[in-house]
Amino acid sequence: KKQCLIDRLRMPYSERIDYCKNKVSAKLFKIMLEKKSNLCIAADVTAVSELLDLADQVGPHICLLKTHIDILEDFTPDVIQTLKDIAEKHNFLLFEDRKFADIGKTVQLQYNKGVYRISSWAEIVTAHSVTGNGLLDAIKGSDNDTKGVFLLAETSSAGSLINGAYTQSTIKMALQYNELVTGIVCQNPLFTEHPGLIQLTPGVQLQAGKDNLGQQYNSVEVVMQEKGADIAVVGRGITLSTDPAKSAENYKKLLWNAYLKRIE
Amino acid sequence: KKQCLIDRLRMPYSERIDYCKNKVSAKLFKIMLEKKSNLCIAADVTAVSELLDLADQVGPHICLLKTHIDILEDFTPDVIQTLKDIAEKHNFLLFEDRKFADIGKTVQLQYNKGVYRISSWAEIVTAHSVTGNGLLDAIKGSDNDTKGVFLLAETSSAGSLINGAYTQSTIKMALQYNELVTGIVCQNPLFTEHPGLIQLTPGVQLQAGKDNLGQQYNSVEVVMQEKGADIAVVGRGITLSTDPAKSAENYKKLLWNAYLKRIE
Repeated sequence: KKQCLIDRLRMPYSERIDYCKNKVSAKLFKIMLEKKSNLCIAADVTAVSELLDLADQVGPHICLLKTHIDILEDFTPDVIQTLKDIAEKHNFLLFEDRKFADIGKTVQLQYNKGVYRISSWAEIVTAHSVTGNGLLDAIKGSDNDTKGVFLLAETSSAGSLINGAYTQSTIKMALQYNELVTGIVCQNPLFTEHPGLIQLTPGVQLQAGKDNLGQQYNSVEVVMQEKGADIAVVGRGITLSTDPAKSAENYKKLLWNAYLKRIE
Repeated sequence: KKQCLIDRLRMPYSERIDYCKNKVSAKLFKIMLEKKSNLCIAADVTAVSELLDLADQVGPHICLLKTHIDILEDFTPDVIQTLKDIAEKHNFLLFEDRKFADIGKTVQLQYNKGVYRISSWAEIVTAHSVTGNGLLDAIKGSDNDTKGVFLLAETSSAGSLINGAYTQSTIKMALQYNELVTGIVCQNPLFTEHPGLIQLTPGVQLQAGKDNLGQQYNSVEVVMQEKGADIAVVGRGITLSTDPAKSAENYKKLLWNAYLKRIE
């Protein structure tokens, strides 16, 4: 039996770019290296002004801005252009955490149509693997070839129905659709022999714990070193702080150092 | 071992009302009996005028109007009131097929906030069980006690990752949250000993087959008699026909007769 020498957990981001089949994952690695940031912020705010302020404040410190565009109460189509301008100014990618989870035909409409026209601005979206390949075919079917998807292989919420077989099937699907899939959302060091895929891990705070709706949190070191995250998602730990920019800078440094330690 | 005498598949809808723990499922059974309709239409259209026209045309023949509000390209908040008026005029329920699939905190925002304010008009929504109980706690947490959820226990798409254990866990979750859960979306006669839950089954057409994105179709008789549906969802079979009202009436009669035959 041939020994597998590749281990994404020990490999610098710079060396992993050559393994990327998805154009967005290569672009993302480059941004991470330029900014020395593997921080994604979860911008879970419900007012447009809050979202734009936050994006502009934390912009210099993040590689990804994770949005839930459908929770904004005063959304208007021009918000998108402003958001795109801020993303370009600070060199980060827009990432709509839509968690697509329908049949292909419906996802095709949800991705391209509606007031949000997600495909026109979000370079990355999330999708559940639960409904099968049709969903990825639907996203892939769109014209633009600079789109990426993070597939959910594990969740950080209590009582999830996802088990090992589900997780493995999701990774298999990611490899099958590697030109479209940027990476995997998960909580453990999976697919270590596939350095072209990026592990995104939510549920990170300086203090471990859980909220009252079942969300569980891990510390920066645990997430980067034990859990295998390539990019960590921080939400309330930054958005609820009195100084989000400073807090984001702090997380960025801690996360980057944890990454450097991992590849030592 | 005590023999289980209850079988929802043999029991008339009228007798099942007493078993409903969710107020919306009781209301839905009453509408079904009044209108002799177990037809839900999937209104997968992208223009507001199309949606409103369709709803008004097929309204007399349906018990549920299934929407994807997020695919409407010219949505404005006043659409909601017009839709509510049409639903009241024709006595059917509004059912947003949102397929919630995030952690509780996010679903809480997606359900109550954003431009769609889903909780303010959709008496029923769909949710995936994949992320666990937090999602249902989040929906339950809203003030109004006249809300219902259909949980997805199986899908009609090819290559789905859902297996028997996932399906059983979903039914267990539905029973645990029976004051909130209206029923189950599935493809087979499950939970037959729980007549208070309603089986909703999509993927119905007069001709069996599949589309090019993996969606599979069954005939009316197969769905009602073999697959155990209490309500059948018909989409393109009606929406793409030259006369949607006539087509809906036709499906309604066929589905109702198939139900009557089942309980004979």
